Amino acid sequence: MQNLEAQLAFIRELDKLKGVYRLARVKTDNNRRENSAEHSWHLCLIAHVFVEYVDEPIDMHRVLRLLLVHDIVEIDAGDTFAFAPQAALDAQPEKELRAAKRLFGLLPEHQGEELLNLWLEFEQRETPEARYAVAVDRVAPLIMNVANDGGSWRHHSPTRSQVLKRNEFIKNAVPRLWSYVETQVDLAVTQGWLSEG
Amino acid sequence: MQNLEAQLAFIRELDKLKGVYRLARVKTDNNRRENSAEHSWHLCLIAHVFVEYVDEPIDMHRVLRLLLVHDIVEIDAGDTFAFAPQAALDAQPEKELRAAKRLFGLLPEHQGEELLNLWLEFEQRETPEARYAVAVDRVAPLIMNVANDGGSWRHHSPTRSQVLKRNEFIKNAVPRLWSYVETQVDLAVTQGWLSEG
Repeated sequence: MQNLEAQLAFIRELDKLKGVYRLARVKTDNNRRENSAEHSWHLCLIAHVFVEYVDEPIDMHRVLRLLLVHDIVEIDAGDTFAFAPQAALDAQPEKELRAAKRLFGLLPEHQGEELLNLWLEFEQRETPEARYAVAVDRVAPLIMNVANDGGSWRHHSPTRSQVLKRNEFIKNAVPRLWSYVETQVDLAVTQGWLSEG
Repeated sequence: MQNLEAQLAFIRELDKLKGVYRLARVKTDNNRRENSAEHSWHLCLIAHVFVEYVDEPIDMHRVLRLLLVHDIVEIDAGDTFAFAPQAALDAQPEKELRAAKRLFGLLPEHQGEELLNLWLEFEQRETPEARYAVAVDRVAPLIMNVANDGGSWRHHSPTRSQVLKRNEFIKNAVPRLWSYVETQVDLAVTQGWLSEG
């Protein structure tokens, strides 16, 4: 049981992701902000039910692991709003890499390396699994904002083109979901949740 | 895309699990109560790092799916405290089965059946994967209560024998974790978080 203390330290540290709040809203819980832990759980189930729209062979166990770890770095680095100023977006990768090394470094070496590599794989968006996982991370806010009368869009007012650009990754990663994305963006503009432009 | 509307209805409904609060506490977020969505995420990662303590061959993709779905029924049936009065515990299985049928029934039929079967597998605790998933669901509150100065134990004061009985499942499912459980229960009694008896 020589690994147990290190694993427990990591498990205790993970608890902090429940206190990292995103801009997204949980309508069904008094419209409070969503935290990154519950968000990660939701993404896993979305990935599970949408996998039939992926056109290439895909290892779903790997997709789930990518989604389970993809936001852990926010414990140290915080969540960055998708439409934040460019300077904030530019500073994020270095902060997140430092966070990844510290957090996954709490684990026994072989496990820490595995999770660090999963996180890097998600960030690099090159494998079929990472591309699908990133697409799911993109589509989830769209689904929930539409379900929640505009959700975080109403608080931060991005434009149609910003949201389309943000979601463009889906077009290549999971083409069969793209027409859904487009209709939802159109709907959001009609409803006044997104501005034209 | 004939399945998409049904899948979206399920995904929107899942959001409600973020508003189902357990008795467990999140110390790192002002000691608020933990919800079942973020709890499920945490369990997946605990299962991932503890799998080396399982003595039989195990399909971790299946374990993750069991943990991702195991609490979804609480959207309709609520969370029942492990040490609730017997009458409340007795009423729970029927409420949960009804909930499972409604919630997983939102999905296209083949997906709904798959998730219903995963939930039943978890409940029946017979496969190696379900036994491990249940053991992880048991050990997590123990880890977090000890980390959080007694956590939910301090609010509800179970006895040493109640907690040992609750966790006894771990002894058979993952014997290599049992001595850790015993030392933590002893510690909790010494600290006054659990009463003798």
